[in-house]
Amino acid sequence: MTKVHSASETDEKGEGFLKNIAIDAVIFGFHDDQLKVLLIEYKGTGLFALPGGFIKTEEDLNSAALRVVSERIGLEDIFLEQFYVFGDYSRYNPVQFKIIMSANGIVPADDHWLLKRFISIGYYALVDFTRAKPTPAAIFDSCDWYDLNNMPTLIQDHTFIVKKALNTLRSNLDHKVVGLNLLPQDFTMGDLQKLYETILGKKLLRPAFQRKMLALGILERVAKKWTGGAHKAPYLYKFINEIVDFSSK
Amino acid sequence: MTKVHSASETDEKGEGFLKNIAIDAVIFGFHDDQLKVLLIEYKGTGLFALPGGFIKTEEDLNSAALRVVSERIGLEDIFLEQFYVFGDYSRYNPVQFKIIMSANGIVPADDHWLLKRFISIGYYALVDFTRAKPTPAAIFDSCDWYDLNNMPTLIQDHTFIVKKALNTLRSNLDHKVVGLNLLPQDFTMGDLQKLYETILGKKLLRPAFQRKMLALGILERVAKKWTGGAHKAPYLYKFINEIVDFSSK
Repeated sequence: MTKVHSASETDEKGEGFLKNIAIDAVIFGFHDDQLKVLLIEYKGTGLFALPGGFIKTEEDLNSAALRVVSERIGLEDIFLEQFYVFGDYSRYNPVQFKIIMSANGIVPADDHWLLKRFISIGYYALVDFTRAKPTPAAIFDSCDWYDLNNMPTLIQDHTFIVKKALNTLRSNLDHKVVGLNLLPQDFTMGDLQKLYETILGKKLLRPAFQRKMLALGILERVAKKWTGGAHKAPYLYKFINEIVDFSSK
Repeated sequence: MTKVHSASETDEKGEGFLKNIAIDAVIFGFHDDQLKVLLIEYKGTGLFALPGGFIKTEEDLNSAALRVVSERIGLEDIFLEQFYVFGDYSRYNPVQFKIIMSANGIVPADDHWLLKRFISIGYYALVDFTRAKPTPAAIFDSCDWYDLNNMPTLIQDHTFIVKKALNTLRSNLDHKVVGLNLLPQDFTMGDLQKLYETILGKKLLRPAFQRKMLALGILERVAKKWTGGAHKAPYLYKFINEIVDFSSK
């Protein structure tokens, strides 16, 4: 939360934005059997954080979240969902934001709107890692993917927010939407199993996994994969085509 | 959202409360095989709404939600969970709040904090209907249970909020927490089936239902129910005792 993005957001009163409400986005990417998360680093501070932003006075909340995410990865057709609102009073600690602002040449008054208490609406996004283009804003030193097991220390409660998003992702794993957004269109049972193993952080037994997946009735076999080798090529699968409603839970 | 609850909330500037954020609570109660929802009616307006409120400057979000709900039903040990944040700009329509305020003798200035745009954090609560004491605030004409199929017209998007909460309740039905909060401690398989049928809004086949429930491993048989009659009395069940974490998803 409380990201300094543009001149208008640095107005003392925050004209044009809703007060006390921020958005924090946990953007998950899957690649090379690794689950990663996108983090930004505020210029000249060494402070790492989740991408985030605010809601414009006449902007839909979900549109604001899509804007925040697409500005960072250059994609708009992504799975993006609210997962929790972080609203404990103990989150409130304006010191780090004074540091971030002063590194950008701003000396805020004590009643600056960005130094007030914020409640943060957490969203998580799922993206095909290879399609995203991490894009820093002017006030960032970096914007990059990090291994979930090897993240830098994050400001505020952002590490907890990532953990909570991961728990949500894990409990939503039986919905095909997770696989739909993290795998290419055609994939092998092995690819799917690796995705599940990576997200769950544990090994699964192949026969039981395959039986369970096929029983869900969400996969269809597409064609033999031609590998050019002499070994038996694995079957390719894709998700059965249905309209998936991304707009709401 | 935007309920006028106390003198301090009617200050033009809303000192002591976070701005632009409200809480709306969908309080579900189960009784007589009916699923009901608690609604309030603003004094002298004929306007019905969900119970709601605001977050105090130093109050945790979840504590504020518990306060809002317990003030209306006199219970604190309830299941209460965030389910969605309603943040479309199209929700914003201050006219009804002008009516509610003027019925309470308040003529608000156009920049009164209660006439600004609010984003509403939706919570749903599950209560044993027979333990709750619906309690109106001074500015309500009534505070009562309504049949879900027979609700009055609600202000703003509150009917949609109830619908979304019901969808969440239905998709969470396999978690025993739903039954734990809507049934007495001991219940028959018939009681449990009626609860499921009521929430799902459809009849279920008894043998398949019983088989599925027992397979979940969350029920234990307690004792024979003595009905005083000559017929074979049904078994009583209770949920296997475990610590259930109500604090988070």
